[in-house]
Amino acid sequence: MSAENTAEHERFMLAALREAAKAAANGDVPVGAIIVRDHKIIGRGYNMREARQDALLHAEIAAIRQACRHLKSWRLSDCTLYVTLEPCLMCAGGIIQSRINNVIFGALDPKAGACCSVVRAFDLPLHHIVNWQHGLLAADCSNILKEFFRKRREQKKLIGTKGQRKQAALEAHEARLRNNEDESS
Amino acid sequence: MSAENTAEHERFMLAALREAAKAAANGDVPVGAIIVRDHKIIGRGYNMREARQDALLHAEIAAIRQACRHLKSWRLSDCTLYVTLEPCLMCAGGIIQSRINNVIFGALDPKAGACCSVVRAFDLPLHHIVNWQHGLLAADCSNILKEFFRKRREQKKLIGTKGQRKQAALEAHEARLRNNEDESS
Repeated sequence: MSAENTAEHERFMLAALREAAKAAANGDVPVGAIIVRDHKIIGRGYNMREARQDALLHAEIAAIRQACRHLKSWRLSDCTLYVTLEPCLMCAGGIIQSRINNVIFGALDPKAGACCSVVRAFDLPLHHIVNWQHGLLAADCSNILKEFFRKRREQKKLIGTKGQRKQAALEAHEARLRNNEDESS
Repeated sequence: MSAENTAEHERFMLAALREAAKAAANGDVPVGAIIVRDHKIIGRGYNMREARQDALLHAEIAAIRQACRHLKSWRLSDCTLYVTLEPCLMCAGGIIQSRINNVIFGALDPKAGACCSVVRAFDLPLHHIVNWQHGLLAADCSNILKEFFRKRREQKKLIGTKGQRKQAALEAHEARLRNNEDESS
């Protein structure tokens, strides 16, 4: 990276971090993503899994969808995706499907990362080349996650034991299902 | 599979094939998916990549999203996904993200399949077990694809050479981008 490039990359990663903060404000794990084409942001997204109760609404997926709408095309060629955390398998697949060429992520995800941690998705013979790099503002990208989980642990301590919380979550889930059945009957 | 189970599985795969036919009618590669819980369909989807110009709108993704809305939960535990074609990397990741337990698909996808063809996504250490099997109504699932591509080749022959078609597609893409820039300026 040249100094000029680095400044631009950092500017976009800071924008991704601002997206991540929106997820945290909703109680979702703070991950944010930005898609850039010709030095302009054309897609933004943050994790909304809990807020929307949609398993697929990771930051990258939301940003890709917005960029496709912006370009009125499913092909995001010549685009760069900035994301605060290493993409998971689904998001790595989504990056390949949308023909994004460049991925820059901050923090590694040793448990579920699909660029280099659990699997090297972009090395699979899938007829699309993705250039990727990591480590940009990694400390900031990692700290926003650490802070989120630290706060959540504190809140959980106040709420009760793990067994009590599990029971409460189970009851809430069953209540949702019952409500749902009532509505659909 | 018991005889009773087989009949039920076939019924749901036939429903997935009907979804696939909707994709073909739109000019999209015919793949269809169904999500079942407690013997009831709670999500349906078909490939809408071209129709909606959204890289992510594979059949499985559309079905998962609908099932999450139906259950008002991102957790699709105890659900079975029926899909006519072997899921790609993105969809295999989406299946793991949504905690679907069972996947039954018809035809193999040797070029992009992520269950067993290009990569065995469900064997990765990702803290969620997915049971999967393939081959159910495989001939029907494969034939709908073959027929779609055969027709498309015939249409292309009528339209012109590969170079001419590539040029036309490029011009259409550029026109979309120009329209888009005009609208956003």
